[in-house]
Amino acid sequence: MRYGVIGTGAIGGYYGTKLAYAGKEVHFLLHKDLEYVKKYGFSVDSCDGSFHLKEVNVYGNTKEMPPCDVVMVGLKSVNNHLLKTLLPPLLKEDTLVVLIQNGIGLEADVQQMFPNVQLAAGLAFICSAKTEPGKINHQCYGYINIGNYSCKNQQIINQVIEDFRAAGVDANEVEYEEARWKKAVWNMPFNGMTVALNTRTDLLLQHPSTLQLIKDQMMEVIGAAQACGVKNINETFADKMIYNTIHMTPYSPSMKLDYDFGRPMEIEYIYTRPIKEARKAGYHMKKLEMLEAELRFLEKKEETKCV
Amino acid sequence: MRYGVIGTGAIGGYYGTKLAYAGKEVHFLLHKDLEYVKKYGFSVDSCDGSFHLKEVNVYGNTKEMPPCDVVMVGLKSVNNHLLKTLLPPLLKEDTLVVLIQNGIGLEADVQQMFPNVQLAAGLAFICSAKTEPGKINHQCYGYINIGNYSCKNQQIINQVIEDFRAAGVDANEVEYEEARWKKAVWNMPFNGMTVALNTRTDLLLQHPSTLQLIKDQMMEVIGAAQACGVKNINETFADKMIYNTIHMTPYSPSMKLDYDFGRPMEIEYIYTRPIKEARKAGYHMKKLEMLEAELRFLEKKEETKCV
Repeated sequence: MRYGVIGTGAIGGYYGTKLAYAGKEVHFLLHKDLEYVKKYGFSVDSCDGSFHLKEVNVYGNTKEMPPCDVVMVGLKSVNNHLLKTLLPPLLKEDTLVVLIQNGIGLEADVQQMFPNVQLAAGLAFICSAKTEPGKINHQCYGYINIGNYSCKNQQIINQVIEDFRAAGVDANEVEYEEARWKKAVWNMPFNGMTVALNTRTDLLLQHPSTLQLIKDQMMEVIGAAQACGVKNINETFADKMIYNTIHMTPYSPSMKLDYDFGRPMEIEYIYTRPIKEARKAGYHMKKLEMLEAELRFLEKKEETKCV
Repeated sequence: MRYGVIGTGAIGGYYGTKLAYAGKEVHFLLHKDLEYVKKYGFSVDSCDGSFHLKEVNVYGNTKEMPPCDVVMVGLKSVNNHLLKTLLPPLLKEDTLVVLIQNGIGLEADVQQMFPNVQLAAGLAFICSAKTEPGKINHQCYGYINIGNYSCKNQQIINQVIEDFRAAGVDANEVEYEEARWKKAVWNMPFNGMTVALNTRTDLLLQHPSTLQLIKDQMMEVIGAAQACGVKNINETFADKMIYNTIHMTPYSPSMKLDYDFGRPMEIEYIYTRPIKEARKAGYHMKKLEMLEAELRFLEKKEETKCV
């Protein structure tokens, strides 16, 4: 099995280096860090055991990369349009592309670009950051769920899961639609609300008015999921997410980090698309619509500030 | 007709001094400005013609004030609990109390404190600020609508309107419920959204996502009003409010000024009460509920910051 990684950041970099460190063949597309990693390799500071990877297959262009059996995409979803040119050199007839990204509608859009490619969702539950060139800081969690979107070859999904497990990464197969919506139950409230109110997950849950609002928003995601045919998520799941988050280390979701560092926010796939899908199914996520509008306003404000 | 003013700020101060300057007997309750105004009187810089009022009846305590025919309350509604002790010395058997304040539920609460007092709403359409002690800066507009809440004596309402007009203030009687809800159509979206997104009315209307959100929120107020029995407000009114605001000088609503200067925000009567009233009538203002939750969070954050 030959792996490729497009978008070697905190997430793609972590899962790719774990596989490589376990002896798998992994090829990384790098951008800014290319020269550094060519010279010094990757350093992974990890709560599960730190390691250094000296010899790595790194490239500045996918045209130089070999065709792969599995391509893991760790790009920010705002850059998914780049896949149109980045992905083709890596594709064989039955390549599996795993989108390790947040949101709803990602696989549908990539499938439209590449009607014949086999796709899966990679749902990463991990706190990880790329702090310096070639340096990945893995703080906690780390498991990954794989949801089959359009892969006809079950064998290859099983192999990916086996390879992850052999590399010390807890991996499991999950039902695609349910898994994407379940992740949205956490992502939709917390990513945007920490930006809109310039705060942290723990403070949102300490104040009764925002605790209720987060719960309301989670129930909107669950309502949307049910309208879209995913029946197996209910209020208990929302309560569990809130309970877990209260007992989690205070945390800045990726959108908050993006906003704070002036990077584009993943509003499209985390908000706009699920809101649209739900509306098509007759369900209106009113509070999350409002949050989307606030984020769109703040995104514009941010741009104006930077000019 | 003897007038009293409780809460001699930008609004109460403006309407009181207009009446006094026209020769009416007006008694003002003052707090911080008392000594200054005793010595120098009031200066009103006004777009309708500036004036100075040298001799003024000012007091530091309502116990020293005479009973009045009409009491105008210009307090911030967060201080309405003070009326319990402030108001009694000014009341005669048929005193009319006019609450020149923003929100829904104000008259109901004051009526509960004083079951026999005659009440009216004063709906002020004015841009005015108290910039220094004894100085009122009236920038534009200035008309006031009076809505009868529990006044059995129509005569006195007519007289108030006549006195205002004689003083150069455009005044009219309006239907109470309809007028309070109509004002909420503007107040509920703009007061909170300028705080939540730290912005101005014009910028909110320039961005398509917040323009739509403001419209949605206005439609929620209209839906609530209709559920509460006020049938005479519809989408045309919302569109007119938006049109007027686009063509208005960029403006910071009072709640934005309160927030920026670290003063308590009038969340209770501008949000919590109308949301509660609507819900009792079976209507959920979902986006405005979310805005209320955001404001409650920001209010707390602000307090914490100041400690």
